Amino acid sequence: MKLVQKRSRKAGLPPGTLVHIGEKKSETVKITVFDYDDSHFQERQVAKAEDVPIAPEPCVTWVDVGGVHKIEILESFGKLFGLHSLLLEDIANTDQRPKLDDYGSYGYVVLKMVYEGERRGDIMVEQVSLVYGDNFLLLFQENGGDVFQAVKDHLRSGKGRLRHAGSDYLLYALIDSIVDGYFVVLEAVGERIEALQDLVVTSPEPETLREIHALKRQLLFLRRSVWPLRDVMNNLSRSDGHFLKESTKVFFRDVYDHVVQIVDTIESLREMVSSMLEIYLSSVSYRLNAVMKVLTIITTIFMPLSFIASIYGMNFEHMPELKSNWGYPAVLLLMGLTGTAMLVFFKRKDWL
Amino acid sequence: MKLVQKRSRKAGLPPGTLVHIGEKKSETVKITVFDYDDSHFQERQVAKAEDVPIAPEPCVTWVDVGGVHKIEILESFGKLFGLHSLLLEDIANTDQRPKLDDYGSYGYVVLKMVYEGERRGDIMVEQVSLVYGDNFLLLFQENGGDVFQAVKDHLRSGKGRLRHAGSDYLLYALIDSIVDGYFVVLEAVGERIEALQDLVVTSPEPETLREIHALKRQLLFLRRSVWPLRDVMNNLSRSDGHFLKESTKVFFRDVYDHVVQIVDTIESLREMVSSMLEIYLSSVSYRLNAVMKVLTIITTIFMPLSFIASIYGMNFEHMPELKSNWGYPAVLLLMGLTGTAMLVFFKRKDWL
Amino acid sequence: MKLVQKRSRKAGLPPGTLVHIGEKKSETVKITVFDYDDSHFQERQVAKAEDVPIAPEPCVTWVDVGGVHKIEILESFGKLFGLHSLLLEDIANTDQRPKLDDYGSYGYVVLKMVYEGERRGDIMVEQVSLVYGDNFLLLFQENGGDVFQAVKDHLRSGKGRLRHAGSDYLLYALIDSIVDGYFVVLEAVGERIEALQDLVVTSPEPETLREIHALKRQLLFLRRSVWPLRDVMNNLSRSDGHFLKESTKVFFRDVYDHVVQIVDTIESLREMVSSMLEIYLSSVSYRLNAVMKVLTIITTIFMPLSFIASIYGMNFEHMPELKSNWGYPAVLLLMGLTGTAMLVFFKRKDWL
Amino acid sequence: MKLVQKRSRKAGLPPGTLVHIGEKKSETVKITVFDYDDSHFQERQVAKAEDVPIAPEPCVTWVDVGGVHKIEILESFGKLFGLHSLLLEDIANTDQRPKLDDYGSYGYVVLKMVYEGERRGDIMVEQVSLVYGDNFLLLFQENGGDVFQAVKDHLRSGKGRLRHAGSDYLLYALIDSIVDGYFVVLEAVGERIEALQDLVVTSPEPETLREIHALKRQLLFLRRSVWPLRDVMNNLSRSDGHFLKESTKVFFRDVYDHVVQIVDTIESLREMVSSMLEIYLSSVSYRLNAVMKVLTIITTIFMPLSFIASIYGMNFEHMPELKSNWGYPAVLLLMGLTGTAMLVFFKRKDWL
Amino acid sequence: MKLVQKRSRKAGLPPGTLVHIGEKKSETVKITVFDYDDSHFQERQVAKAEDVPIAPEPCVTWVDVGGVHKIEILESFGKLFGLHSLLLEDIANTDQRPKLDDYGSYGYVVLKMVYEGERRGDIMVEQVSLVYGDNFLLLFQENGGDVFQAVKDHLRSGKGRLRHAGSDYLLYALIDSIVDGYFVVLEAVGERIEALQDLVVTSPEPETLREIHALKRQLLFLRRSVWPLRDVMNNLSRSDGHFLKESTKVFFRDVYDHVVQIVDTIESLREMVSSMLEIYLSSVSYRLNAVMKVLTIITTIFMPLSFIASIYGMNFEHMPELKSNWGYPAVLLLMGLTGTAMLVFFKRKDWL
Repeated sequence: MKLVQKRSRKAGLPPGTLVHIGEKKSETVKITVFDYDDSHFQERQVAKAEDVPIAPEPCVTWVDVGGVHKIEILESFGKLFGLHSLLLEDIANTDQRPKLDDYGSYGYVVLKMVYEGERRGDIMVEQVSLVYGDNFLLLFQENGGDVFQAVKDHLRSGKGRLRHAGSDYLLYALIDSIVDGYFVVLEAVGERIEALQDLVVTSPEPETLREIHALKRQLLFLRRSVWPLRDVMNNLSRSDGHFLKESTKVFFRDVYDHVVQIVDTIESLREMVSSMLEIYLSSVSYRLNAVMKVLTIITTIFMPLSFIASIYGMNFEHMPELKSNWGYPAVLLLMGLTGTAMLVFFKRKDWL
Repeated sequence: MKLVQKRSRKAGLPPGTLVHIGEKKSETVKITVFDYDDSHFQERQVAKAEDVPIAPEPCVTWVDVGGVHKIEILESFGKLFGLHSLLLEDIANTDQRPKLDDYGSYGYVVLKMVYEGERRGDIMVEQVSLVYGDNFLLLFQENGGDVFQAVKDHLRSGKGRLRHAGSDYLLYALIDSIVDGYFVVLEAVGERIEALQDLVVTSPEPETLREIHALKRQLLFLRRSVWPLRDVMNNLSRSDGHFLKESTKVFFRDVYDHVVQIVDTIESLREMVSSMLEIYLSSVSYRLNAVMKVLTIITTIFMPLSFIASIYGMNFEHMPELKSNWGYPAVLLLMGLTGTAMLVFFKRKDWL
Repeated sequence: MKLVQKRSRKAGLPPGTLVHIGEKKSETVKITVFDYDDSHFQERQVAKAEDVPIAPEPCVTWVDVGGVHKIEILESFGKLFGLHSLLLEDIANTDQRPKLDDYGSYGYVVLKMVYEGERRGDIMVEQVSLVYGDNFLLLFQENGGDVFQAVKDHLRSGKGRLRHAGSDYLLYALIDSIVDGYFVVLEAVGERIEALQDLVVTSPEPETLREIHALKRQLLFLRRSVWPLRDVMNNLSRSDGHFLKESTKVFFRDVYDHVVQIVDTIESLREMVSSMLEIYLSSVSYRLNAVMKVLTIITTIFMPLSFIASIYGMNFEHMPELKSNWGYPAVLLLMGLTGTAMLVFFKRKDWL
Repeated sequence: MKLVQKRSRKAGLPPGTLVHIGEKKSETVKITVFDYDDSHFQERQVAKAEDVPIAPEPCVTWVDVGGVHKIEILESFGKLFGLHSLLLEDIANTDQRPKLDDYGSYGYVVLKMVYEGERRGDIMVEQVSLVYGDNFLLLFQENGGDVFQAVKDHLRSGKGRLRHAGSDYLLYALIDSIVDGYFVVLEAVGERIEALQDLVVTSPEPETLREIHALKRQLLFLRRSVWPLRDVMNNLSRSDGHFLKESTKVFFRDVYDHVVQIVDTIESLREMVSSMLEIYLSSVSYRLNAVMKVLTIITTIFMPLSFIASIYGMNFEHMPELKSNWGYPAVLLLMGLTGTAMLVFFKRKDWL
Repeated sequence: MKLVQKRSRKAGLPPGTLVHIGEKKSETVKITVFDYDDSHFQERQVAKAEDVPIAPEPCVTWVDVGGVHKIEILESFGKLFGLHSLLLEDIANTDQRPKLDDYGSYGYVVLKMVYEGERRGDIMVEQVSLVYGDNFLLLFQENGGDVFQAVKDHLRSGKGRLRHAGSDYLLYALIDSIVDGYFVVLEAVGERIEALQDLVVTSPEPETLREIHALKRQLLFLRRSVWPLRDVMNNLSRSDGHFLKESTKVFFRDVYDHVVQIVDTIESLREMVSSMLEIYLSSVSYRLNAVMKVLTIITTIFMPLSFIASIYGMNFEHMPELKSNWGYPAVLLLMGLTGTAMLVFFKRKDWL
């Protein structure tokens, strides 16, 4: 989750040069092709773009490409489906802002997929590019993982609406499962915030502060990923394009509502985290106060007492009190009274 | 009032699968049906959706469903009234953002109802879903409580406008009583803020701080519930739909004004709470200052005095002052003068 | 100037029930009627709405009602002038947000009037409701005071434009004098801020802090009252209604400019108050620093000196220095040098 | 540069009464008339409005009125040029927000002119009113100074575009020189900020704080003067009015760009000043820390040493160490070791 | 990177006077002319504008002017290409806000180019002006450096799209390489922020604070340069002008996406820097706390011990304990116990 991706090696190249920007997340590129309509379903692994069969309508072809770091594979897909060079550049550059581009004969959606990492508190981010046309959908993810397992299972089982609807409904199903991922991650963030809530008052350590700022940074990052998604979903649910059927748009509207809900939740969590920072600081400051009080009380009680003792520690020859039999107990009594008086004074001042 | 609801068990399910999200707030589901027009009124309890009688127009049928956690009941209502699967999903998911959806032959409003909990300072939130059509209104609440008692009483008594107007006026009456609930809750919040106002200056304890942050969080939550309501009410008061009569729209406009008023009040209260936090912090800091002054005064007065005493506590053989008869009283006088001089100095510096 | 008005006793009543919300500010309700046109002018006190004479056009009838807590009087006005029940509800509820409602045959403006209270620093707020039609204007204030004395005097004297213009110009004259009241109040607030400006640096007491927060709260309140007024005046100066003549609209435009000016001034004053809070806090913090320096200097100077003295206060039998005739003056010299060295050190460090 | 001008003596007067609001900045009112076209140019001083000659088109008449506190002069101009009473009121009231009013047969622009005062750091503000028609332009300033000397010189010399263009280009030339004045003032503010930049870290005195807040206040004031100017210039460069020729609009567009640039600069400077405040506070806090460390080190080193000395200052008869010949040097050695150990400890803790 | 450029010497000059504003960045002005179409390419250095050959369409002429401080050169270009005097003024004034002006027969884009300076952490800014027409493009930079080397190389090599496309694609290529420069600079800023991240917790020195504020200032500056670029690119990608071909607009749209990405990144980095400031302050405050604890512990332990010792240092004749053989060890034991008790107490209070 770096805030700024390395793009500098791109500067100086002519525009349109295909360069992969981002970390390479897997070694090989895994290409899976799903071919389906109401009555048939076929799934197979292919090695290169040229092997992808384009089935005739009303068949839908979904190509799931895992890995975008091999430029030559992207280029062969570009040639096969007639994709614009800027679109290929956007796929290869994993530092995209979520957006929706309409290229006339096909559409392009890029968005961020989030999920929890293996270490507690880690949030992983991956870029997903979706190119959709009348009867095909290309999905590019950085990694060949099985994040869309659920969607694939529905396709395989043939139950539900998925097999009977077109590529637009598949697009919805994929985006919907990505958006659901945000809810899962936010739940985890919310739980960590709840857990910190008390810690911040009872033991405000620098460690707590670092955790708060890690949360703040993650929320900043999530907000940056999800904020532009609002416009994307809004445009999808209102687009005039011929790809999206009227009956599917209500589903995109539903995803839009979810995204707004996520934005709302992120804003609330951000305010909670800011509050926690304030509590942290005021806790530290309150503790300083408490420590100071103890210091003051000790000093205030013992300084006069020690002063009295030091007076009678002076070596003057003519100090009549020193000769008196009652001098010592009288001084002890004086000390006792002084100390008690001050304790009472502090109680009154509410410092004890 | 959790900031993030558990939705994770939904992730991975195909879109459209009906799952209840939220806490189950009651065991059974209570269904009450009201059937009325100008001249007649009937109220009865039914066990399942199929028992709901659909009276002919101009009769209005109001079904009050208390509890949304039984999926099968929602499904039977969906079948009976021909509701869209996404709408049913929204009803079952109690983590909705307030919104208004127009489904052509019926409309859907979801909003949050708030009321004070049993423990002082608690605010309870419940989701209310309203499905309204030409002569029916379905109300889904999480709990089968009698929150809409007043509306029911007016129906029963037959007085006022309610019985003579259509389902749109019933919709208004229900939303109006939900919005009135916000005023009641805000009144309580306002009172707690007033109560804290002084406490924050006179005794800034961590307990006060925690109370301030609890208030901040509640206001954050209320704002989140009521902010989208503005758009909902604005759309209702301007909608072209055939459900809402022109004469009813002025009432929705009135509710809209109330919602704007609530938003305004929440913003003001939020600013008040922020101010209180500032006062809290500066009070703590001022107190630290006061404590430091006492410490400094004590140290400044007794350190030189003790030093003088310690000089004459040294054991040098040749210290002429020690032999003198006037040595002891002279030193005592010196100490007295030094102490007094310093007290005067502090008075001048305005530290005492 | 309570932030949240008691509205709870309204919750549960059917919508449209007339209940007075707010404090009762006077006992009786004073109704004064002004009847005028170019050539004649009549002023009289009436006891109830039914006594109000409706003069034929082009006569203008202005009814000034002082007190809105008597529901029956509002109701009789409602009947006489055919006012909508929601409008009457708004008049009775003194917790309205300023707004403009067009009811077809008459218009309704509600706004807040402010003036200085008797105690220095108090700001009084009253709600003013204006119902205006072709040849009448109803003014409802919470109190029967003589706030609009100036307008009444112009009417009586017959000088100026007022008597020759219609009810729309009267509406302008009344709103203009209410808006002028904001300038007067802001002037007073501005003066109090200027007065605090220095106090906050020279003597940052908790009392100063409380005054700053009182100012902040008042500005928050004024902003809330005047912000929606912008829209009201803008709508009035652009409205297509047949009540407002073209020639009068330029005057409403002028009032609109004044309101924008007031909003601007409030924002500036709010920033000034925030600045003062910052200065307050940094003054407290700077003073803490100054006190700490004194403490440190005292401690740093006397601790080593006392230590030296305590060494020679030890009772070892073999301490050769104690026998020496020069021991005592040598130690005194050592102490003097140490003290001077440290004073020089602090001067260098710029702590003195 | 008062934040709130005295307007209270206006409250209570009938609307449209002409009262001068603001400080009187000069005693007499200086009226200069410029009459020019391509071929001729005349400049003369007149005593009253009636003496102003209205030259026939295409001659342009520019009247420069220095001083707006003499109401009767404004009234005579009003009569001569047929100006609306509200416009005259706006000219007399020097507390206007910049705005553009279109009165049909003439236009009215009011804006704030700023320049540096005689004392370093002072910013003077004056209101300038411009009434422009087909072949005349009235300029009202509060003071009869020679701020528009440059424009006058160009007119006199007859070089450049000014004499050949109409009154609209003159309007542009005057506004352009006012806007250039903002750049000059901002430059000075920028330099003072740069100068404070270092001071704030090296010697954070209350004096520095006061300077920062003076800057903040000036920027707040400048922003308030220049912000509405954006709309004014935008409207001028887009207005459909017949006064402004198409060819002149590009110049107003250019002034608009300058105003946007000024707004940008002010915002940046405001952020810089806020940053400086933060640095000030953290410098004070860092210094407190440094002082505390010294205090702690002194206390920590001498307290144990003094304690050891005080043990051997006790007067017990049976203290074997006191008899020993090595007692004294052993104790001195112990003290030396303790002190050194603690110094090493602090070095390790990075406190020295 | 000064926040406010010196413009004061311009004030008082008639509008349209050409004056160079900004630092002179190179001595001479270097003019290079590129003439190309599909089949031919020519590059040459010329000394003055008059030497620029205007090739017939479809040839594209690109003039790269390095240095804008020689007014006479700008004027001769103005004459040759018929440029508006305001445009020339904008080129000469290097304190422009990025903008796009359409002058009918040619367009004008001004923007800021950024690159890293020689000293680590420095960011250099230069203004680039682009005047584009049907078959020519004038580029004015402040310095004759080789920033657009890559574009020139592509032209020379004849590979890629550049030679085959018109002046609009050249415009895109130049702007694209400027925008890529922002990514490079932001990468460097991001790395410096990451580097500070830890430093701010482990060693919060004033030096760190100064670095944070330098970063803040640079980000403020970058934001100011890039924010208006959004509108410029948006307008370019939507402009109706006949200069930009439909096929080129998709490229400008792509640059627009990059600019939005840059704005996003800057906002994120600004939030990170603000967070770091908060951490800095709370680290300083936490350290103060830690130091205070040590001080309190030392004082609290040694003050009572020293007091006990000073009691038995008093010189009273009748102090029975002093005679006792067990007095000394008993007192030592008492001291030991007291000290241990207090250590235990602090452990419990979690202060050690």
